[in-house]
Formats: sequence, C-alpha cells, structure tokens
Amino acid sequence: MPERPQTIELVRRTAFFATAGEAAMARLLRPSFTQVLPRGAVMFEQHQQADFLHLLLEGSVGLMARDETGAETVVEIFGPGELFLAPAAILQLPYLASATALTEVRVLMLPSEVFRDGIAQDPALARAAVELLARHWRLMVDQVVDLKLRSAERRVARFLARRVAEDHGTGSVALPEPRGTIAARLGMTPETLSRTLAGLEAAGLIRVFPRRIDVPDREKLLRVAPKK
Amino acid sequence: MPERPQTIELVRRTAFFATAGEAAMARLLRPSFTQVLPRGAVMFEQHQQADFLHLLLEGSVGLMARDETGAETVVEIFGPGELFLAPAAILQLPYLASATALTEVRVLMLPSEVFRDGIAQDPALARAAVELLARHWRLMVDQVVDLKLRSAERRVARFLARRVAEDHGTGSVALPEPRGTIAARLGMTPETLSRTLAGLEAAGLIRVFPRRIDVPDREKLLRVAPKK
Repeated sequence: MPERPQTIELVRRTAFFATAGEAAMARLLRPSFTQVLPRGAVMFEQHQQADFLHLLLEGSVGLMARDETGAETVVEIFGPGELFLAPAAILQLPYLASATALTEVRVLMLPSEVFRDGIAQDPALARAAVELLARHWRLMVDQVVDLKLRSAERRVARFLARRVAEDHGTGSVALPEPRGTIAARLGMTPETLSRTLAGLEAAGLIRVFPRRIDVPDREKLLRVAPKK
Repeated sequence: MPERPQTIELVRRTAFFATAGEAAMARLLRPSFTQVLPRGAVMFEQHQQADFLHLLLEGSVGLMARDETGAETVVEIFGPGELFLAPAAILQLPYLASATALTEVRVLMLPSEVFRDGIAQDPALARAAVELLARHWRLMVDQVVDLKLRSAERRVARFLARRVAEDHGTGSVALPEPRGTIAARLGMTPETLSRTLAGLEAAGLIRVFPRRIDVPDREKLLRVAPKK
C-alpha cells in the first residue's frame, strides 16, 4: 500500500498495535490494503476460509452466525479500531461467522498468512494477539451472562452505556445500525427493543431520536431496575 | 514438584501442551502443584486476582458468573485437559467468573507469572496460548448462537453429542454434574431440562439414567427437530 497518514495514525492508536509495536505494524501493513464498502456489503461469509484479518477503520460491522436450520443472528457488533476474526486466521479454520457492513465502512485487510508468520516470529505481536483474544473472550462471556441473567432493560442500558465515553458520564450515542441488528445483538425481538427504549425514555433515563440516543446520566442509566 | 508419571503423561497429551512443547511444559510444571478438591469446593472467586492458571486433570469444573444484582449463572463447564482462566492470567485482571468443583477434582495449579513470562519468551508457548484462547472464544460464540437461536431440544442434543466421542457415534455419556448446573449452562430452568430429556427419551433418541445418558445414535440425536 501507500496508506493515508490518518490511516496510519488510526492503526497506531488501536489497542492491538499499541501492544504489537511499530515493527509489527510495518510488517503487517506492507501487504495490507484498505477497502471502502457500502452499507449491506458482506465482507466475508461464514464457513469461508479465513484469508484475511479485518481491521475496521470507520463504520460498524455485524458478525452474523447461522445455525444448521439456516436461522441467523448477530453475535457481535464491532466499531472502529477492532480487529476480527483473529481466531479463524490463527487456527486456519473457516470463519465462524459472516461479517456485514452495518454502515458504510472503511476496512484494512491484513493477509492471515503474514499475521500467522508474524506471531511465530515476533513476541510483541504474539502478545498483542493473546491480549486481543483474551479481550474478545471476555466480550463473549459478558454476553453469555447478559443473555442468561439480565432483563431487557438492563441489556439495553448496558449496551448504550458502553457507547458513552466513560470519562464523560453523559453523551449522545450514535446508533447508525439497523434497529433489527441491535435487537439481535441483544438477544431480543425488534418489538422488545422498541418497547424497552420507550420505557427507558418514559423513566427519563434516555431521549430517543431516529439515529441517536441521548444519555443524560450514564451511572443512573446503569442502575435501571428491571420491570416487575 | 515431583509429579506422578500419569500426571505428566496427561499434561503432555493436552491440546495446549501438544502445541507448547516439552520445554514449555518443563518450565511451567516446575513451580506448579496439584490439588485434590471435593465436590462443591470453590477453586477461585469472581473478581479475585488471577494468581494461577488451572489445568484440570480429573473431574468437572463449573465457571459461574454473577451479575450486579447477585444472580448467578453457569458460563461454561470444563472437563479434564482444559486450562482456565488464561485471559485473566494473561491480562493480569481479576477472574471474570468463579470456579466450583462439580465433582471431586484433581487440578494442576500453574502460577500466572511464570505463564506470562513464558509467553513473552517462548514462541511455542505463545502459539499454544493463542490457540487456546481462539478455541475458547469459539466455544463462547457457539454458546451465544445456542442461546439466541436454538430450541431447548437442540441445545440439550448438542450438549450430549459433544460428550459422545465423535469417532464412535454411539455411547454412554457420564453426567456427574448437578442437573441444575447443566441446566444453567444450557440457559434453561431445571424443569425445562427434565422435560426436554424426557421428550428426547420418548422419541427414542436417548436413554436417561441417574448419572449417565445413553446415546444410541449421535447423528440422529443431532438431527432432532424442535417441538412446534
């Protein structure tokens, strides 16, 4: 590539490359390239061989998985700075999920083979991969706990709170993704999501707009009690 | 330690140490020790600092997580040969879950610090850690898909099928864990688990005994259609 300076700076600031370091970054960026894809584009299919890791530079991506009957759900939604799906690239296994652009996206494509070779030779890169996987494992455990224990109110409140910068405690949360995708991520129907958002708004905890939600007080939102 | 030869052989055969190699194994085993704990023993608590990785040698362990209201659920059940919780040990973060012995267990305790140093210095050990984390991430993704998409029948069928050796296709599945723990792992009430097992038995797909279940045909069990 020759990459735009802003891209380089964005890549450098990701948690992954902050750990992996400049040498690993140079090594991985050399054979990589960026793609700009419209909302709705399928970046890769479930069961396809994992030839690339994807580093999201701009936009929002949904990981979708199908079960054996063909039913589909949203496993996770990733935003800028996230690297996925490393497990498939590392294990040389097919992707466990497909990835769909939920907005227009700009994504950096890193060849899996270069990534695997890098891990084998560069301890800093291996450490970054280990930290990335450990963090993603924790995301999934958190979601399992969400699905098993938490009410719709709490799930929605936590999802919104995560999008409010912690140091602010208040803010406007952009929701550029289709509402149906957010509902599937949260393990509820779109109707339940709408009802829950309306309930949180009636309680004065959020204000709902078409493509954003205002959170006046993050801590108060997180203390929402489930409806009886 | 001086370890029993059978323990060494068991450790050597785990997926983790098959990748990590003999040098890493010697390095990690030197400061490690085994514990034998009764059913019900709490091996570590959620939010406790992760001073050890645990390699289960015998028995069954439940990872339990609590939400902010104190409600508890079962995130995963691990059997012999599994190493946990590597993410907490690697990231030097508190355990995301507590671990309870679901049967009498024999467990090898590996100091986290030795593990972290090893990863930084030994590429084979780093690779084994990456593969372990990637595999555990896939387990959690699979469970998220389970919880979001699959009926109780399919969840139970897949749980039992995983315990039947794939090369046999038929077998007797030991269920030494409390039924309530298995139900929580599967995201259902104990009553739903009992009803689902009874339904699968009535359909001729399994035979239920107090501490084991016979699966005459694994493939047929996996094709179970959800009740309408």
